[in-house]
Amino acid sequence: IDSRLPQVGTTIFTVMSRLAQECGAINLSQGFPDFNADDMLFERVAYWMRAGFNQYAPLAGVPPLREAIAHKVAALYGTTYDAETEITVTAGATQALFTAVAALVHPGDEVIVFEPVYDSYAPAIELQGGRVVRLQLAAPDYRPDWDAVAAAITPRTRMIMINSPHNPTATVWSADDLAWLAALTRGTGIVVVSDEVYEHIVFDGTRHESCARDAELAARSVIVSSFGKTYHITGWKVGYVVAPRELMAEFRKVHQFNVFTVNTPVQLALADYMADASRHEGLAAFYQAKRDFFRAALGGSRFELLPSAGTYFQLVRYRAICDEPDTAFVERLTRDTGVAAIPVSAFFADGRDERVIRFCFAKNEATLAAACERLCRV
Amino acid sequence: IDSRLPQVGTTIFTVMSRLAQECGAINLSQGFPDFNADDMLFERVAYWMRAGFNQYAPLAGVPPLREAIAHKVAALYGTTYDAETEITVTAGATQALFTAVAALVHPGDEVIVFEPVYDSYAPAIELQGGRVVRLQLAAPDYRPDWDAVAAAITPRTRMIMINSPHNPTATVWSADDLAWLAALTRGTGIVVVSDEVYEHIVFDGTRHESCARDAELAARSVIVSSFGKTYHITGWKVGYVVAPRELMAEFRKVHQFNVFTVNTPVQLALADYMADASRHEGLAAFYQAKRDFFRAALGGSRFELLPSAGTYFQLVRYRAICDEPDTAFVERLTRDTGVAAIPVSAFFADGRDERVIRFCFAKNEATLAAACERLCRV
Ligand SMILES: CSCCC(=O)C(=O)O
Ligand SMILES: CSCCC(=O)C(=O)O
Repeated sequence: IDSRLPQVGTTIFTVMSRLAQECGAINLSQGFPDFNADDMLFERVAYWMRAGFNQYAPLAGVPPLREAIAHKVAALYGTTYDAETEITVTAGATQALFTAVAALVHPGDEVIVFEPVYDSYAPAIELQGGRVVRLQLAAPDYRPDWDAVAAAITPRTRMIMINSPHNPTATVWSADDLAWLAALTRGTGIVVVSDEVYEHIVFDGTRHESCARDAELAARSVIVSSFGKTYHITGWKVGYVVAPRELMAEFRKVHQFNVFTVNTPVQLALADYMADASRHEGLAAFYQAKRDFFRAALGGSRFELLPSAGTYFQLVRYRAICDEPDTAFVERLTRDTGVAAIPVSAFFADGRDERVIRFCFAKNEATLAAACERLCRV
Repeated sequence: IDSRLPQVGTTIFTVMSRLAQECGAINLSQGFPDFNADDMLFERVAYWMRAGFNQYAPLAGVPPLREAIAHKVAALYGTTYDAETEITVTAGATQALFTAVAALVHPGDEVIVFEPVYDSYAPAIELQGGRVVRLQLAAPDYRPDWDAVAAAITPRTRMIMINSPHNPTATVWSADDLAWLAALTRGTGIVVVSDEVYEHIVFDGTRHESCARDAELAARSVIVSSFGKTYHITGWKVGYVVAPRELMAEFRKVHQFNVFTVNTPVQLALADYMADASRHEGLAAFYQAKRDFFRAALGGSRFELLPSAGTYFQLVRYRAICDEPDTAFVERLTRDTGVAAIPVSAFFADGRDERVIRFCFAKNEATLAAACERLCRV
């Protein structure tokens, strides 16, 4: 078989979660909570199923959910999206990103991404015949170099894919970063695809700089978010996209022939849940407490903690422990120490290895404590 | 914006369902039941949610569901698929078809489809730079012409997409058809993508000829099915794919970066539900009774009933009523008569119009009776 994605193996998250399970290790690799979501969500899903709302939703999503999203985005970031034409509910943020790329990137187009980059971006671009232009962020601060971005933009640049709060580095872009992005894309045909799935998980009072804060930038942005990250239901696979009408029209052309629409009772339940507009408000503090607990508990270890300004991830350098490649190190850590992590080299096309690994701290304190006890023995 | 799919508008199913709703018409257009699914399904979803199974499933689907699928396929069609490497749960059959095309069709490849063709196939192919080769099926019997298929195959033919029981024509391919398909693709590099979402809805004692009945054909087939059609939950958007390991490996490369995986509690509930292996057994008789009721009730009308051998659709010709184009006719029927249908020209790229429209009879008898009463007045 002549593969369309010859380079692609199984995603690192699957590989590490599987290994964690095989070894009975504490799984701090793939990003998901080990605590349950709010009972009210389950109650509402059960309600809508029993009430008979089990057939196709409209392709863009059920209207009350789209309206709740419009309301939230307007309240938080100031840009008003039309629920009818500018908001679409997706089968997770990954599907939203894949579909945005499929709808907007023509063969030969260039797409700028920042490495370390979430592993779904490049295959999505390559599948459409796009050329991935990789700019590097480097440990320990992973700041974007805007001169390098300016230099990378060519007449073929069709899209820039950004992600803040950033997975895996846990960095958060500043208003200055967004201003640079706006300036560099102004008057070009470049579309910004902004992966903001961790929008509500930003620490230390910093605010999330959504592309939707700047109406002018928003007018050329496709913004993606996730219910999984915000409501502790990563396995429900529901996210959404907001974008100006013309971009959304193209998005929906592909969306309708990809998944067509998303689970109806789940959408209706999410709409009910979002009726309380303060739902996401405690989330940053909730995860900040976990971050602080995790960092404190790793204080006695030989791991060097990098900053974690957002997301539910913590990067650590392990140079003080050994100089093994990160893939070998995480395997050994899973097997011998009983804690699974993600090697950050998996987010670089050339496997660049700064001896940094990623832990997920979206876990109960007991889980984090047990993991840290093991990690402190390394 | 330079559209990647300039030809594509909003899918006809959305257009007609929206119009039906606006007009308060009985909606026999988009295919979905107006009765509820089995309570046990809801109970099981609620169970797994409350039990805390709300995080990512493995990318191919939860093991018990894949095993239940393997069991069903082997029992019905005789081919054994390995649940670990040859079965993947998808966010509906449409996503499965889209992903199969994205994973296997290279730019410049030719893909043979049979018109009238489900409206997602061609855009999926075109998006990958494939060339759609359209063979025609014609009213009233819509039989494939295997000489025409043989003539259409070239060294660039990469894929043949088939669909039996067939939407919208309600025809069912025979063992002979499958033998032709097997013969024409033997020894070629052609992959058969077989959309079998109505596999359990075949009438009058006819049996469904799955590609999985012929091990040799199955070895080059990607077979797609749907839980929505079988369990009356079209809005849950869950389907599956079975394919030999090498094809499935390519499928999963794209699947993992498209939707990654599917709603976990829903998958677990479906696995529980399928534990009773006879689940689908009454389905053909259930829908056959509806077909017979619907046809009998239309007996007094001026619509000419075409055969319906499977699916939950009934085609009718309306030449005895008028010679309006079918798109105009369904609009008038929705607005004036209060019954929505699908114009079959929507399934032809050139809008070929044989004055045939499609009704969905997956409805309660009361709904069907009310619709037929109106239709008999036309
Ligand atoms: C697709 S599973 C990966 C979850 C995730 O976003 C992560 O671990 O980074
Ligand atoms: C994607 S909604 C269409 C449902 C269906 O399969 C049909 O009506 O043919």
